[in-house]
Amino acid sequence: MISLDLSNAKLDKDIASYQEKVTVAHNDLHNATGKGNDFVGWVKWPLEYDKEEFARILALKKRMEGKYDTVLVCGIGGSYLGARAAIEMVKGLYPNDGIEVIFVGNTFSNTYISQVLEHIKNKEVVLNVISKSGTTTETSISFRIFKKFMEEKYGEDAKNRIYATTDKSRGTLKSLADKMGYETFVIPDNIGGRYSVFTAVGLLPLALANVDIEALMKGSLDAYNELNTADLDKNPAYQYAVARRVLDDKGYKAEMFVTYHLQLAMIAEWWKQLFGESEGKDGKGILPTSACFSTDLHSLGQFVQDGTKVEFETVLHVDEMADDMVFPSDDENLDNMNYLAGKKLSWVNEMAYKGTLSAHSEDGNNPNIVINIKDNSAYSFGYMIYFFFIACGMTCYLLDINPFNQPGVEVYKKKMFKLLGKE
Amino acid sequence: MISLDLSNAKLDKDIASYQEKVTVAHNDLHNATGKGNDFVGWVKWPLEYDKEEFARILALKKRMEGKYDTVLVCGIGGSYLGARAAIEMVKGLYPNDGIEVIFVGNTFSNTYISQVLEHIKNKEVVLNVISKSGTTTETSISFRIFKKFMEEKYGEDAKNRIYATTDKSRGTLKSLADKMGYETFVIPDNIGGRYSVFTAVGLLPLALANVDIEALMKGSLDAYNELNTADLDKNPAYQYAVARRVLDDKGYKAEMFVTYHLQLAMIAEWWKQLFGESEGKDGKGILPTSACFSTDLHSLGQFVQDGTKVEFETVLHVDEMADDMVFPSDDENLDNMNYLAGKKLSWVNEMAYKGTLSAHSEDGNNPNIVINIKDNSAYSFGYMIYFFFIACGMTCYLLDINPFNQPGVEVYKKKMFKLLGKE
Repeated sequence: MISLDLSNAKLDKDIASYQEKVTVAHNDLHNATGKGNDFVGWVKWPLEYDKEEFARILALKKRMEGKYDTVLVCGIGGSYLGARAAIEMVKGLYPNDGIEVIFVGNTFSNTYISQVLEHIKNKEVVLNVISKSGTTTETSISFRIFKKFMEEKYGEDAKNRIYATTDKSRGTLKSLADKMGYETFVIPDNIGGRYSVFTAVGLLPLALANVDIEALMKGSLDAYNELNTADLDKNPAYQYAVARRVLDDKGYKAEMFVTYHLQLAMIAEWWKQLFGESEGKDGKGILPTSACFSTDLHSLGQFVQDGTKVEFETVLHVDEMADDMVFPSDDENLDNMNYLAGKKLSWVNEMAYKGTLSAHSEDGNNPNIVINIKDNSAYSFGYMIYFFFIACGMTCYLLDINPFNQPGVEVYKKKMFKLLGKE
Repeated sequence: MISLDLSNAKLDKDIASYQEKVTVAHNDLHNATGKGNDFVGWVKWPLEYDKEEFARILALKKRMEGKYDTVLVCGIGGSYLGARAAIEMVKGLYPNDGIEVIFVGNTFSNTYISQVLEHIKNKEVVLNVISKSGTTTETSISFRIFKKFMEEKYGEDAKNRIYATTDKSRGTLKSLADKMGYETFVIPDNIGGRYSVFTAVGLLPLALANVDIEALMKGSLDAYNELNTADLDKNPAYQYAVARRVLDDKGYKAEMFVTYHLQLAMIAEWWKQLFGESEGKDGKGILPTSACFSTDLHSLGQFVQDGTKVEFETVLHVDEMADDMVFPSDDENLDNMNYLAGKKLSWVNEMAYKGTLSAHSEDGNNPNIVINIKDNSAYSFGYMIYFFFIACGMTCYLLDINPFNQPGVEVYKKKMFKLLGKE
């Protein structure tokens, strides 16, 4: 399903020399014997996920079908990026199924919150709030505001349109939801935010947004099975993990995640959290950055080609995107573009990709890792996400880092709470 | 209008030591005696811009008022980022003036182009194509497709709804526009793409999108006047330029441009082109990256706080954003958020900013530069853009780089053209 191309990665080293370390780390991940082992619930999740809850998500979706045109998803970080990445990848930026998904709870921005309130005034809305504890400030602020909106708009019926994804039994949001009569879904104790897209955290927004979550979970399961081998030769996820370590050691301190379709740009944002938050500890890790080509070749291309050699590129290449079209011929040919008439746009984009790969790796001497996936389906999304999960766990273990905590995130919160006057 | 705060920049050096070099570079910029001096038309542009053409833009906007709900802007790189950054900053992400602006011509993505075509089927559309030569492949491909759409939808009247911003007398697009009877606007010979937002390149899309371009140009003029001094003490733009050089020399090879409102994220994309494409040459320059806080504190925050010290932060802080709102009280207080009841959201965001600045610069030991601007008005946008222009020219001259060419961008194009079979 996924193939990895390291032929332009300039590793100057046989990655097979990492086999022993990889085997140890693989066993640590699968047997929960490594650092942060109370948060490896995601490893076997594609096998072990809660089928009853999954059915409840599908039932909720069916029950609400036709009763809403707007899905408000209220969450931040891992409670937002995965669902958004999937929706944009699978449905594109201008989907025509009549469902608009709006992410809130991920900002304090007054202008954003005010404008969304105004924008949804006359829409039919459902609201999914996502927070393990219910104390995340951005999410709590937005939730209070949009809960009030729902109550003013729908009265008693608001409780049938608000769903809480939270801890299974404890916490502020769980208590609130039970008291208000909201249907609740579970964020498992042993899966951290950035590893949570296959739980209700991702699945409920995705189902409401018409993404095929059965296909998505099938993709994750196939990835689990196919990538469940310590053999580096047979495991592209671990090859990617090792390649990152080799390039880090060679002095490349930034990794630019490159896509070739605007609707894939949010995958880069999701990926940044996964790798940045897992790995960026103890003064270690690779700075995650991103670009969407060919768009950004007209902004960042010059730097990549000729600037400081600080970053390597990891290119997500998709073999087949939906909705292809043929470039039309034009009798007058005033724009001199007839040389492309009859060609598919996907083919043109492919030539841009090939030309860029050669320009950057050969002429620019930039290491390029290429990750090939088949298409932009929900199945491929599920497969790809698991690929990155397991690659991330591996690359962190190889660096002797706990991939599953995020102690540094608390520092600004503490300072902010003090300024906000929170007890 | 703009104040710069270097108190957390950790320069460990008196920037006044750069005064002599700054004076030389200032004179080179203003007298057109430095590297790339055939492309410094932007320096005096706020004084010297074409008033007749400006009036034509306003007249066109007035003539079309009420006749369109969708503006297609067809361009890439500098012919796209400035207008988009301004529209989002000034109008927000969910404006309610009934005008939707869609950027095309900036991608080969078949899914994107197909979806936009479907999305605008029943809209009232005007189309502004922007290309100096008319040979930029992404833009030409989209323009042919959307020109055909306009002709099928509007017949003869299409020519009154299509406007070309291009060379004043030569090139493929100029010839095509003249032959088709499109109104044309000029990209001056001595202003490169990434310095062009104050020309018709930016002004026409902005006017069509209801942005006050008179205020915007007033902002640029005030910035021109106030920043037209070589005196480092009095010129925050040059202070920023020097601070970048000091941090680069200290080994910080990436600069993270940070905003605190989602609608400012495109300013970071515009800024990346300006600095990355101007400076990323001869193996030099700082990798431009970005984040939008507090949103991305829940994804990139961990890395910034505790990861490899490769980047410094440049924070764009806006004193006053439009559409503020008060956080409501709630009698039940089930979410425990009443401690913020009665507070403005802008104040909460401000505390997040202050807490983060302290967490990153004091605890995390990351250099932070803060650029303060007044509000998100068109005037402030104009002022800020000129600030970055002149800072960018200065920082490149201090590095002995020509800020106004982009030779590296051609490499992928040549390879792509060969693959596409272009003669």
